[in-house]
Amino acid sequence: MILEHALLYVKAEDTAAYEEALKTALPLISATPGFIKLEVRPCIEKVGCYLLLVEWEKLEDHTIGFRGSERYLKWKALLHPFYNPFPEVLHFGENLFSR
Amino acid sequence: MILEHALLYVKAEDTAAYEEALKTALPLISATPGFIKLEVRPCIEKVGCYLLLVEWEKLEDHTIGFRGSERYLKWKALLHPFYNPFPEVLHFGENLFSR
Repeated sequence: MILEHALLYVKAEDTAAYEEALKTALPLISATPGFIKLEVRPCIEKVGCYLLLVEWEKLEDHTIGFRGSERYLKWKALLHPFYNPFPEVLHFGENLFSR
Repeated sequence: MILEHALLYVKAEDTAAYEEALKTALPLISATPGFIKLEVRPCIEKVGCYLLLVEWEKLEDHTIGFRGSERYLKWKALLHPFYNPFPEVLHFGENLFSR
């Protein structure tokens, strides 16, 4: 399993609309082969900041499978206009610890 | 449950020593009341970058319980010298989605 990670920043006045757009967008990503689980969590200290974590079976399920799909064009159109600045997406390997 | 989050950066030549120090430090944090789970994952794109995620029952278990403990002084002494830059630690609330 690998973990996709991004810190997302949207304007404070757009958070309700953004969360609605996320709900609409969720089936676009979860339909991808290799998709395991998605979490979006709101930041306690910073209004408009969210943590996105997506579990994928392998890196290419995200970078090729999802980003190369028609569904990604719809995902981008729904969500990317909210981001300021545009997020850096990174991927992380297996947990170093079992506990 | 709340999630503590930090992106950690250590020098590429220090990663083995840092991972050893993490193993030593783990019991210091996991002994804290309210601690649920810790993950440290190495970044695929950036050598020396790690994602730290710690689940806590509530925010104060981390900010008061752990940071106010004697064990935190040992944690700092073991791990903080590795960080460059010093990480920003944020906390995130419940997942917006159930899937």
